[in-house]
Amino acid sequence: MRLLFLGDVVGRSGREGVLRHLPGLRDRLKPDFIVVNGENAAGGFGITEKIAQEFFAAGVDCITLGNHSWDQKELVGQIDRIPNLIRPINYPEGTPGRGFTVLPAKNGRHKVLVINAMARVFMDPMDDPFAAADKVLKVHQLGGARMGPAGVDAVIMDFHGEATSEKMVMGHFLDGRASLVVGTHSHVPTADLQILNGGTAYQSDAGMCGDYDSVIGMKKDAAMWKMLRKIPGERFSPAENDATVTVCGVFVETDDRTGLARRAEAIRVGGRLKESVGV
Amino acid sequence: MRLLFLGDVVGRSGREGVLRHLPGLRDRLKPDFIVVNGENAAGGFGITEKIAQEFFAAGVDCITLGNHSWDQKELVGQIDRIPNLIRPINYPEGTPGRGFTVLPAKNGRHKVLVINAMARVFMDPMDDPFAAADKVLKVHQLGGARMGPAGVDAVIMDFHGEATSEKMVMGHFLDGRASLVVGTHSHVPTADLQILNGGTAYQSDAGMCGDYDSVIGMKKDAAMWKMLRKIPGERFSPAENDATVTVCGVFVETDDRTGLARRAEAIRVGGRLKESVGV
Amino acid sequence: MRLLFLGDVVGRSGREGVLRHLPGLRDRLKPDFIVVNGENAAGGFGITEKIAQEFFAAGVDCITLGNHSWDQKELVGQIDRIPNLIRPINYPEGTPGRGFTVLPAKNGRHKVLVINAMARVFMDPMDDPFAAADKVLKVHQLGGARMGPAGVDAVIMDFHGEATSEKMVMGHFLDGRASLVVGTHSHVPTADLQILNGGTAYQSDAGMCGDYDSVIGMKKDAAMWKMLRKIPGERFSPAENDATVTVCGVFVETDDRTGLARRAEAIRVGGRLKESVGV
Amino acid sequence: MRLLFLGDVVGRSGREGVLRHLPGLRDRLKPDFIVVNGENAAGGFGITEKIAQEFFAAGVDCITLGNHSWDQKELVGQIDRIPNLIRPINYPEGTPGRGFTVLPAKNGRHKVLVINAMARVFMDPMDDPFAAADKVLKVHQLGGARMGPAGVDAVIMDFHGEATSEKMVMGHFLDGRASLVVGTHSHVPTADLQILNGGTAYQSDAGMCGDYDSVIGMKKDAAMWKMLRKIPGERFSPAENDATVTVCGVFVETDDRTGLARRAEAIRVGGRLKESVGV
Ligand SMILES: [Fe+2]
Ligand SMILES: [Fe+2]
Ligand SMILES: [Fe+2]
Ligand SMILES: [Fe+2]
Ligand SMILES: [Fe+2]
Ligand SMILES: [Fe+2]
Ligand SMILES: [Fe+2]
Ligand SMILES: [Fe+2]
Repeated sequence: MRLLFLGDVVGRSGREGVLRHLPGLRDRLKPDFIVVNGENAAGGFGITEKIAQEFFAAGVDCITLGNHSWDQKELVGQIDRIPNLIRPINYPEGTPGRGFTVLPAKNGRHKVLVINAMARVFMDPMDDPFAAADKVLKVHQLGGARMGPAGVDAVIMDFHGEATSEKMVMGHFLDGRASLVVGTHSHVPTADLQILNGGTAYQSDAGMCGDYDSVIGMKKDAAMWKMLRKIPGERFSPAENDATVTVCGVFVETDDRTGLARRAEAIRVGGRLKESVGV
Repeated sequence: MRLLFLGDVVGRSGREGVLRHLPGLRDRLKPDFIVVNGENAAGGFGITEKIAQEFFAAGVDCITLGNHSWDQKELVGQIDRIPNLIRPINYPEGTPGRGFTVLPAKNGRHKVLVINAMARVFMDPMDDPFAAADKVLKVHQLGGARMGPAGVDAVIMDFHGEATSEKMVMGHFLDGRASLVVGTHSHVPTADLQILNGGTAYQSDAGMCGDYDSVIGMKKDAAMWKMLRKIPGERFSPAENDATVTVCGVFVETDDRTGLARRAEAIRVGGRLKESVGV
Repeated sequence: MRLLFLGDVVGRSGREGVLRHLPGLRDRLKPDFIVVNGENAAGGFGITEKIAQEFFAAGVDCITLGNHSWDQKELVGQIDRIPNLIRPINYPEGTPGRGFTVLPAKNGRHKVLVINAMARVFMDPMDDPFAAADKVLKVHQLGGARMGPAGVDAVIMDFHGEATSEKMVMGHFLDGRASLVVGTHSHVPTADLQILNGGTAYQSDAGMCGDYDSVIGMKKDAAMWKMLRKIPGERFSPAENDATVTVCGVFVETDDRTGLARRAEAIRVGGRLKESVGV
Repeated sequence: MRLLFLGDVVGRSGREGVLRHLPGLRDRLKPDFIVVNGENAAGGFGITEKIAQEFFAAGVDCITLGNHSWDQKELVGQIDRIPNLIRPINYPEGTPGRGFTVLPAKNGRHKVLVINAMARVFMDPMDDPFAAADKVLKVHQLGGARMGPAGVDAVIMDFHGEATSEKMVMGHFLDGRASLVVGTHSHVPTADLQILNGGTAYQSDAGMCGDYDSVIGMKKDAAMWKMLRKIPGERFSPAENDATVTVCGVFVETDDRTGLARRAEAIRVGGRLKESVGV
């Protein structure tokens, strides 16, 4: 199977970047399944149902979220009816939406488990993401139908977090049980993509899909003012220069039998970051 | 000028990786100046005078530190006599050592200002790194002798920090005034190297020089135990598999007149991260 | 019932303060049940089985812990055989020891539920303390035998945390379901003891049992050096001036039928803090 | 001299509590100087010029702030013309307002130095509060005219912070150089008032002037929802039950010659916290 994961989409410029580059990426990579982290898609803060539908229409199979899940408050009431939009699994019990989902691949034959979890170091208090992931993976095991009716052909973990140490622990913790463990939230792609010893592709952060002539996707002036001056300034809003938008993510080709990674390529297209296109 | 910066060297395996790859890098890149972040060089915790001398003997021109500066306590009494080993500038007044230095390039003709500063988001309380950098750069201006006797031909800022937002703010804050602003501390190379609008090369993190089959350079088992179990386990020690050691950093070629970046290349050699060698 | 809770005992001077003042407190208050937080009893860091036995011999019925639970590593292997020494309930599943216990009161007729939980704001990542407490309290309900065989006559929650906001949320969350919700960890007694609307006695922090001519019970010089100088200094060790040791806690008298608080008094004896003795 | 300090005033109910109780406190304590922390006076968030004037009209001599200084944005442009409203001293250089002030006492004969500083542990990045205080106290020394024309008769430090350890370090750091070091920000009064070895009165937190049937002065429901549910809820607003408003602070009587504390009393009036009135 061929899996494409794109990191946090930031604002209008990020969304348009994704929509502009996705056809080319689909042509070239022929992904069987596409995941996008959408926690910053709506003006930098959360996502709306309408934006989610635009992603789905463009071929995205699943959207994940993060600490900005509820910035657009209406989503709280809507998320339960959007089956392929998931939020981090380790929110308190009773939180609307779900933290993982099993969805069909584009080829109709394969099943993909996507888990979204929030890291905890330097982040809000949340339940144990490792225990939560473990519990799901005991039910939905990688290896397809061989693993029983709940078996899945690919597992993608979007681990939304700050600290590289915690992300690597998740990588090793799921090594051999997931096709891809990829971080989000830092809004910067890392260059540490590797296939871990057990066969899981791992990258500490997918990077954002947004304007990199910015401060993590937001306009520089407001972000600099706030950090340098510490007095109120302009509201934060996404940087909007299309020429410096890069679409960032990870592409993984799995072994159809094991569901583990055979090949992995960083994806960076557009803008002024060094281009990287899996072939 | 040609500048080479290498990120946090972690433990014995990281040091040997640097010493093993540095001759090749010097051959290929012909750097006029080499900086290495050494805060984790001694068993993962701090640096000793002896290790510093080994780096200098291998051609390193300047060593920078970070939050682990004083993990080897003897350094407190030694640092004042090691002129090209600097510690973050924003420690309290009266802290041994210095936070910036102006050193001659290998070619004997050029002067390089190196500043080391600690970020504050998710880090220890420290004085304002932006104000501290600003003060130094008002004295030692980029542009060489044209800028007076304190003028310098290149400026390298090692900004040791956690949050990508704060690192980007530093990049933009020094844009046009530094040759290179590069982050350290996350131990993961980022793939966001770019030349900012004002001519400063910027990468959020250089990445570590160490074993990437690890948790930020430390042995996986101890790090995973601590995070997953929260009961005492093995002491942390550096991962030591030479086959998975990658030497990570950034190479910048500056315009000799302005001192700004003309070209920048990520450096990743050895191990299993995707190789990147500036030409 | 008459309940006495004493906050974090710090080091030799704190232990001796408790042993010195406990007979007088027992005479005056005639407590039916005594809880002590012991997380700093052994040289400021954790507790040993021997120290725990000394507390039990002095009439302490239950010992609670906190973020320093495992500073004395041997306790990991011992805690399972010390039934009235509990650790925070929201450690990961599989952690040795237990997070709550039901113990007989001194009068032999009543049962007391003690829960120990760790707060999360500005603390280590832990599971949800509110959900954990809720689960226990659904089984062991306040109100004695009327509530079935698992009913208890008093409920004491030691909520070990930093942020006053989180502690107050726990107070209100358990209001009407606990006899006493009391914070620990800040090592400073708060003067906000009150009986909440639902009948639960609440104080944000019990305060430490230790030397208040100190920095949270530790010798001033080392603590000041570390914070002011940020270079290595003396090891931290407990302050040891017996003349400035205050034993701090809370005394609660409950209604025997409901188990809720009828009267509550702050306890501060010895040293130079303003004395407060329940009558 | 007789000094009265009142902690963070929260919202309408807190302001009215202060205005209601201040006449009685003035009658009883006959303070020569009154300081109030006003960072939460305007609906819980910041302060307006109008509210400041109400406090001044009621006899308050100086208002201090904290991390909420600029929640009412207009204050940024107004603070420079309100000489006895100060903000934390360790904001970046160039921040409007000032971080300390020397004001006449009500008796017309004495001068009082008030410093407001922000702590850094678990708080926003700020410059070194210890160095900043030290610098001021080298100019304005306690001891009155004997210390030269810049000498002052009393020194009050409002140290706005979270961690008790950092507050105690400030207490000891200024011991012998200040009349009173008192913490604010936790919104809970501590019961650790003492006169330190060098003669400085110290209390870790003054406590808020506000409704204690709340979560740090805010309505319980919204605060509990946010912490327990982590989905959007009601906006935070101050709790407004006048019957549970307590006015909290510290009263210090100094030696007129040395300016050091001769006597100190916790102040808690109204509501359901245990009353404490200095005589
Ligand atoms: Fe994001
Ligand atoms: Fe995020
Ligand atoms: Fe490092
Ligand atoms: Fe570091
Ligand atoms: Fe403690
Ligand atoms: Fe603690
Ligand atoms: Fe406040
Ligand atoms: Fe505050």
